[in-house]
Amino acid sequence: MGPKFLRPLTAPDAEKGQAVHFGLDSPLTLDGGRTLAPWTVAYMTYGTLNAARSNAVLVCHALTGDQFVASAHPVTGKPGWWETMVGPGKPIDTDRFFVICANVIGGCMGTSGPAESDPVTGEPYGLSFPLVTVRDMVRAQAMLLDALGIEKLLCVTGGSMGGMQVLQWAASYPDRVVSAVPIACAARHSAQNIAFHEVGRQAIMADPDWHGGAYQRHGSQPSKGLAVARMAAHITYLSEAALQRKFGRNLQNRNGISFAFTPDFQVESYLHHQGTTFVDRFDANSYLYITRAMDYFDLAADYNGVLAEAFRGCKTRFCIISFTSDWLFPTVENKRVAHALNAAAATVSFVEIETDRGHDAFLLDEPEMFAAVRGFLNVVAAAQGVA
Amino acid sequence: MGPKFLRPLTAPDAEKGQAVHFGLDSPLTLDGGRTLAPWTVAYMTYGTLNAARSNAVLVCHALTGDQFVASAHPVTGKPGWWETMVGPGKPIDTDRFFVICANVIGGCMGTSGPAESDPVTGEPYGLSFPLVTVRDMVRAQAMLLDALGIEKLLCVTGGSMGGMQVLQWAASYPDRVVSAVPIACAARHSAQNIAFHEVGRQAIMADPDWHGGAYQRHGSQPSKGLAVARMAAHITYLSEAALQRKFGRNLQNRNGISFAFTPDFQVESYLHHQGTTFVDRFDANSYLYITRAMDYFDLAADYNGVLAEAFRGCKTRFCIISFTSDWLFPTVENKRVAHALNAAAATVSFVEIETDRGHDAFLLDEPEMFAAVRGFLNVVAAAQGVA
Repeated sequence: MGPKFLRPLTAPDAEKGQAVHFGLDSPLTLDGGRTLAPWTVAYMTYGTLNAARSNAVLVCHALTGDQFVASAHPVTGKPGWWETMVGPGKPIDTDRFFVICANVIGGCMGTSGPAESDPVTGEPYGLSFPLVTVRDMVRAQAMLLDALGIEKLLCVTGGSMGGMQVLQWAASYPDRVVSAVPIACAARHSAQNIAFHEVGRQAIMADPDWHGGAYQRHGSQPSKGLAVARMAAHITYLSEAALQRKFGRNLQNRNGISFAFTPDFQVESYLHHQGTTFVDRFDANSYLYITRAMDYFDLAADYNGVLAEAFRGCKTRFCIISFTSDWLFPTVENKRVAHALNAAAATVSFVEIETDRGHDAFLLDEPEMFAAVRGFLNVVAAAQGVA
Repeated sequence: MGPKFLRPLTAPDAEKGQAVHFGLDSPLTLDGGRTLAPWTVAYMTYGTLNAARSNAVLVCHALTGDQFVASAHPVTGKPGWWETMVGPGKPIDTDRFFVICANVIGGCMGTSGPAESDPVTGEPYGLSFPLVTVRDMVRAQAMLLDALGIEKLLCVTGGSMGGMQVLQWAASYPDRVVSAVPIACAARHSAQNIAFHEVGRQAIMADPDWHGGAYQRHGSQPSKGLAVARMAAHITYLSEAALQRKFGRNLQNRNGISFAFTPDFQVESYLHHQGTTFVDRFDANSYLYITRAMDYFDLAADYNGVLAEAFRGCKTRFCIISFTSDWLFPTVENKRVAHALNAAAATVSFVEIETDRGHDAFLLDEPEMFAAVRGFLNVVAAAQGVA
């Protein structure tokens, strides 16, 4: 395989990292039936690709993540979203591995998505951008890897929607994936999760500043709706126990409750903060597109409802990680994947980590998760002769 | 005790049932420090008060409930919200018991609340209505009972926020409550529940048609915001298992997904229906006031944090009912109440019912719940010599 689609790579810039621009001759074919061309994928890399090109690790980001996995976010200035996991000496050790993380198709950090300009009209896409699926995200990443001249991935990993992409990678490109670490995810989005996403979408679309998705042209932003969506979603990322432990019924003001509708409880102020900071860094239409892609995810559906068939003959080694208090992607959904892999005679280990931190645990300081990933990668790297 | 506050009762009307109007000489003193006068409480009764006035059962409604517990709702035309429980021959048997159900203070079905007109200005209260607490709701009900000449209640019962009122009744007026059946509730609102309520309130207040609460004057209604609030809340009323069983990933259209933002999944259409029908029968400001009252509820806080002290010396007999799949008011919170009652040497039985229907189970056809309530009331009635 040569770098068939290779285009001049833009230099890393402070805003969007690096990017590959695909021309009219390299369309991205989407599950919805439409094609995208020209189109762009923005990404970041960390570490150095070895001569054998055998030490590449692809990290897939979650719903509101981006390519800045191990370096400061250009908008917020905050550390990369997985710096605890990825970096020099970290479990995904950039002294050993060449880490790639790409903004998903439909995202809002430089990859083609509803917030970008349609190259044909020069206007922002808005809702004219085609709907995408998790498989489309993975297809776009595969074309990026082609462009970078990377045939095989030592590992693909990610949590939440990142984990969905990991599963899709193994199903779509089994020969390109040596090992896979899906974390806190599922092979299908549940009815409850679809319901929560729909609440968020309705909150955005109810905001008159959304303007039917054309807010960029109106110079507005549906900030209030997006903040409500984020607040609702954020509750699902934590556990009841974690909320009780962190906030309980603690008040903002030591003088007691205010008998007003301003935040009285610390948990309210925390949620407000989550909502207001989110709108500064995320595009509302992207939120619609990416939640929809997650809703649509049902890997077994592509294989007549038999999940094991998605992994039939797959040589990839799997390490699945779940968290006891994750009610968004509970252990039972992660185990379903493990059972399907067993049924397909794939190599799989399963780690359930005891924590009260809920779904968000995959982003937090969880020593057992770090140990599991580090140990698994050591074994995989050794088997592949990666130093 | 005489009917000190007795006012001419209005005849039952199709809209709001019966009502007692309290004058300037009968103010309702609120926990927030303000008083309300004149004020009104709207209510319904079912069955006949016996000569000894010993067969009265007070039913307390939940967040979005009202006084129409066992008769058709005047706006929707739908059956009363607890007709499975209350009526002739039902567990709360109106052939034997005199059932009273009052719209809570802050509500929107005839009792004084933000949607009603301020008798001083003639304008709708809106946000000038004082914030209320669960204890204020109970205080208003006690004044209603005074007006009706009912000193003692054979039983007080209700689910969810209705259960909170039951607990408050036993704490505030232990001598007036022979027995109490709090269902699917808690002695305090949890951080997670406060968080979900705040999301709903933010959705309402983000709607420009809310107009800072003065929407009646603007001839508008924050329907979109209120619908989003209802949708988010509705998810918490069900269990993940029930959503999966009822809807799973079933599609609206047999031709497959639409690759659009219209509802693809049945669970989305169901939620939309819950949202749109709700706004036809409920006032957005009332939603703010009543969710706030629930947030503020922390019975132990009035007793130096020791819940058992709320029930010290209480002669009331308790029957507490919880549901295994209720994650809004989980069994553990209901048990906390039982333990406090044990610590206070009160008489308490505890029933946990196995069901996958979540919090909403208290409103549904749950034979074990019916049997528990029927059996408990039989024993209590016999002990009180009620036929």
